Amino acid sequence: MFLFKLLYSDSKTQARIGQIITPRGVIETPVFMPVGTAGTVKALFPELVASLGFSIILANTYHLLLRPGPEIIKNAGGLHAFMNWKGLILTDSGGFQVYSLSSFRKITSEGILFQSHLDGSEYFLTPEFALEIQLMLNSDILMVLDTCIPYPSDIEKTQILTELTHKWAIKSLEFWERNKKEGKAIFGIVQGGMFEDLRKESARFIANLPFNGYALGGLSVGEPFELRNAMLDIAIPELPEGAPRYLMGVGTPLDLVEAVIRGIDMFDCVLPTRNARRGSLFTSQGIISIKSSKYKEDFSPLDPECSCYTCRNYTKAYLRHLFLAKELLIYSLLTLHNLTYYAKIVRQIKEAVRTGNLSALREDLYLKYYKTSKEEDDGSDVNF
Amino acid sequence: MFLFKLLYSDSKTQARIGQIITPRGVIETPVFMPVGTAGTVKALFPELVASLGFSIILANTYHLLLRPGPEIIKNAGGLHAFMNWKGLILTDSGGFQVYSLSSFRKITSEGILFQSHLDGSEYFLTPEFALEIQLMLNSDILMVLDTCIPYPSDIEKTQILTELTHKWAIKSLEFWERNKKEGKAIFGIVQGGMFEDLRKESARFIANLPFNGYALGGLSVGEPFELRNAMLDIAIPELPEGAPRYLMGVGTPLDLVEAVIRGIDMFDCVLPTRNARRGSLFTSQGIISIKSSKYKEDFSPLDPECSCYTCRNYTKAYLRHLFLAKELLIYSLLTLHNLTYYAKIVRQIKEAVRTGNLSALREDLYLKYYKTSKEEDDGSDVNF
Repeated sequence: MFLFKLLYSDSKTQARIGQIITPRGVIETPVFMPVGTAGTVKALFPELVASLGFSIILANTYHLLLRPGPEIIKNAGGLHAFMNWKGLILTDSGGFQVYSLSSFRKITSEGILFQSHLDGSEYFLTPEFALEIQLMLNSDILMVLDTCIPYPSDIEKTQILTELTHKWAIKSLEFWERNKKEGKAIFGIVQGGMFEDLRKESARFIANLPFNGYALGGLSVGEPFELRNAMLDIAIPELPEGAPRYLMGVGTPLDLVEAVIRGIDMFDCVLPTRNARRGSLFTSQGIISIKSSKYKEDFSPLDPECSCYTCRNYTKAYLRHLFLAKELLIYSLLTLHNLTYYAKIVRQIKEAVRTGNLSALREDLYLKYYKTSKEEDDGSDVNF
Repeated sequence: MFLFKLLYSDSKTQARIGQIITPRGVIETPVFMPVGTAGTVKALFPELVASLGFSIILANTYHLLLRPGPEIIKNAGGLHAFMNWKGLILTDSGGFQVYSLSSFRKITSEGILFQSHLDGSEYFLTPEFALEIQLMLNSDILMVLDTCIPYPSDIEKTQILTELTHKWAIKSLEFWERNKKEGKAIFGIVQGGMFEDLRKESARFIANLPFNGYALGGLSVGEPFELRNAMLDIAIPELPEGAPRYLMGVGTPLDLVEAVIRGIDMFDCVLPTRNARRGSLFTSQGIISIKSSKYKEDFSPLDPECSCYTCRNYTKAYLRHLFLAKELLIYSLLTLHNLTYYAKIVRQIKEAVRTGNLSALREDLYLKYYKTSKEEDDGSDVNF
């Protein structure tokens, strides 16, 4: 059995607090899902991830299809057993990575032909095969295959690709009807690019299909912050109240608040983990880059307001030393810190929903990140 | 106060069990020291290292001198505080890395002029400076600067470099007399290359100086197993009974037993940690390479007799997947396993000393490692 229970709705905004109830456990929403691409949240023992309060992670179908292959994971007893993760797992459909990583070959009405970025081997990803793989992984929440619409794209291309997404959504549900497993959920994905009409139409189309949850795809692909929020404003009111809403691939702490205000319940993003590995840290004072020479003899923690293991036991000077020496421990220490920060932001968001203080939290995060991110930017490849 | 207490001596061999007593804690010998080169045992939280039973680690003066520099560590309150290590720290003198890593410039009677392998900057390492750095690091056991004698070397070169080591040993003690700190220990180092007379003479010379402990240097530099054991047979009887004896840079589990049988109390080696990062694992069945395709669908643990976190929670198939994907978590998981194995070997050695079963343990390890290491060797850069 898979259920979504709405517990609380904000009177001033569209924000809400809910529960996703599954045989494997109950998740409170809004929820942030750390990314465990290849069957591991990079650099962290899974028990540590859980200890920070995360109860669901995202794993990438594309990566696991290529390596080690879904048969091995199935024979291992599923991805949870394979990777020693006791919480829930949501898997994407693989479509986004086909588009961003592989040698993209050809998109037909049946699916996507592509070459592995690892060894060039060929795969044909169809709506049915995408779900079949996710069933082999024993995922708890499966995502349908959708099309990726680059930003910017013209209206014709956006329309064609959005319609294909809709066609695949129906095919996915037909496959699911024949192959579904009790307690597992399937989520549909809204596309529509950055065109208001198409976005609204896509939301309506997908919302009318009997999915367990509804995701917004094709956002966070390079569009301005304001444009993304405009798309949320248009799409979310079309989605059913009684199902979880998932904003894929988003985002910064401020993005999370902006989305929750508009009625989003679920998020995933590589930002906390990837930025950590690049030395970019979220703190109560804004973003800091641990590489900076100003931390050479700074014997204070990354964040005086953080109580994570890293902040309790290490100084900026030590972390900078490990980072410059490319010592393996640094990736664990910094990832631990950034995920702790995200866990705290999600707690603050929930608290703000309950107390009606979301706009104050939004203001606070705006000042922190939109001011300091420019000051701290060191010109490296950390996008923020 | 630094003390060595002999608790038990084997009647059949030279093996012994003892205690090193320091203000920071008591260590049981024989003891193995994991290597924490740049102020971190690579890929592991220090609490995990301690939880395996290790109470002392080795840190490298050369690496810490170059980066981040001893002033920063001193200002951080010493290396223990800097790296969050609650146990003891032994530091080497830097001489070996000058020889193996740097652009080696010139050796004079005063010291060694060299260039950093990181940025080419110049340093002049003298016996006095080597100790000064170690005092700034707040090391518990300091090693004197010695000369490194390549293997093979002719007798003339070996003699000259051994005499220089002796001269530096005296200078080191003179410096120590003026600068020593209560509770810290200074160890002398025997050289003499692979020549029986020179090795014995060096052992006698160093043994006659008032060090707190005595190390054998210049071994494990490429010489055959039998030759190294012959050098131990010659040198160890010259060393005082009442002080700890330390065999630097050694070795395999079998090497440890061979050395304990001959009266050695302390070891350090990169083998368990470095081999782990290269996918080579010590197990009760011998050495295995996790890369091997035969583990592709092997859902058993690395070692059925091991109770480490890695063996309790992960299969070979998963570990192989992470290793091939170069996922960061793998380095933590495999290092944890190999250090657990070394901790167990040391416990078995102690038990065998107390029960008079060292030769049975030696036989067992000989069969395990000298047979299987050849079968399992995959031609990669793991030396064993």
